[in-house]
Amino acid sequence: MSKSEIKALVFDVFGTVVDWRTSISRQAAAFGVKHGVQSDWDQFADDWRVGYGVGMDKVNSGEDEWKIVDQIHRERLDVILPKYGFPQLDEDVLADFNKAWHRLGGWADSTEGLTRLKSKYIIASLSNGNVALLTNMAKYANLPWDAVISAELAGKYKPHPRAYTHTAELLGLKYDEVMLVAAHNNDLRGAINAGLKAALVTRPDEFGDAKKPDLEPENDFDYFAKDFHDLADQLGCD
Amino acid sequence: MSKSEIKALVFDVFGTVVDWRTSISRQAAAFGVKHGVQSDWDQFADDWRVGYGVGMDKVNSGEDEWKIVDQIHRERLDVILPKYGFPQLDEDVLADFNKAWHRLGGWADSTEGLTRLKSKYIIASLSNGNVALLTNMAKYANLPWDAVISAELAGKYKPHPRAYTHTAELLGLKYDEVMLVAAHNNDLRGAINAGLKAALVTRPDEFGDAKKPDLEPENDFDYFAKDFHDLADQLGCD
Repeated sequence: MSKSEIKALVFDVFGTVVDWRTSISRQAAAFGVKHGVQSDWDQFADDWRVGYGVGMDKVNSGEDEWKIVDQIHRERLDVILPKYGFPQLDEDVLADFNKAWHRLGGWADSTEGLTRLKSKYIIASLSNGNVALLTNMAKYANLPWDAVISAELAGKYKPHPRAYTHTAELLGLKYDEVMLVAAHNNDLRGAINAGLKAALVTRPDEFGDAKKPDLEPENDFDYFAKDFHDLADQLGCD
Repeated sequence: MSKSEIKALVFDVFGTVVDWRTSISRQAAAFGVKHGVQSDWDQFADDWRVGYGVGMDKVNSGEDEWKIVDQIHRERLDVILPKYGFPQLDEDVLADFNKAWHRLGGWADSTEGLTRLKSKYIIASLSNGNVALLTNMAKYANLPWDAVISAELAGKYKPHPRAYTHTAELLGLKYDEVMLVAAHNNDLRGAINAGLKAALVTRPDEFGDAKKPDLEPENDFDYFAKDFHDLADQLGCD
């Protein structure tokens, strides 16, 4: 398959483009100070994140109706706050803190690397995060997307094939003209199973010391890069 | 209603942000030269554009199944090419020329004005054009959208209320936190009927001498500006 056929790069976002764990931990620490709570905020971030996979699996399996990631985050937040000793909080305070996931910082190479890749390709998000979350995050983290695309628009979460194929269709491209860029083998397998191309970019610090990141491709993906600059070099971007 | 509540500006695109008539006329003239055809290319552009409104009305009324604007443009192109004396052309030539609508230039103030507005608000397209068309156009005309939103995502064309309300919902905002910016009274009426705010920006040259533009608000809209810089001034953007 010719590598020159790629017309769009679509990106997993949580972990691949933004450092969710550090960003959530930092915001949770500030939230703790404000409400008189002390804790291990990295663990809090991991605990909050647990709800994400579980919540999406329930939607894809049909056990739950469609719900956006903001709602999945909020349901998990309501479960963990009492566990960490937070008092009852007002609805507007909770709604704002739930948007911590809209305020995630990019990795050091994210903005510059994406800008280089954008010079040659259409670049778009392809995240399970909802459109509002991704739009606000792009503004916050200075992510220069050509288009904000979300699994929300397909009504199925990655790694369901429809999340990938629907994205290519929205962009008016053949499936193999689109390459998913992600730091996770599982997501990339979903992309190639759906007919897209795939590039693994490693993010060794995504999980801190809580969990091992994917540092090697587990399948025969099209590209394997250590960050977005390395990918831009391999793809011949200025 | 407080004007300070606006969080996102969503923009009509054809005519409001890009000068479709000059861009299509210019590309059609070059296409004519290539295929040995002489004609009035402004008239050709207007004739091609006629298919747009008719095609969308048929979708909204239920007479036609959902079809994207690329398809509506193509069906109209197939009707008018023989009328202007073009010979039979290959499919790939027609497919490429149909994408003339992806290659429209912005008005003189579009990129700078949008950039100023983006410093204070979320800015997104809200066009009947499909996502692929809008994404390619943003790259071509350097339109710095935070998000590319299309009536395609709602499955209803403006001025159907769902096209507007679905956009606000995707952005996670209340309807009256979103303001449509458009050069057309009809579109703006659709927005206020759906609960959004509305700003008329005049584009006196949109139709050349073929049709009168909307130079005055026909309803009590929230803002009335002569271009995007004027709107940015009125909204207190740097």
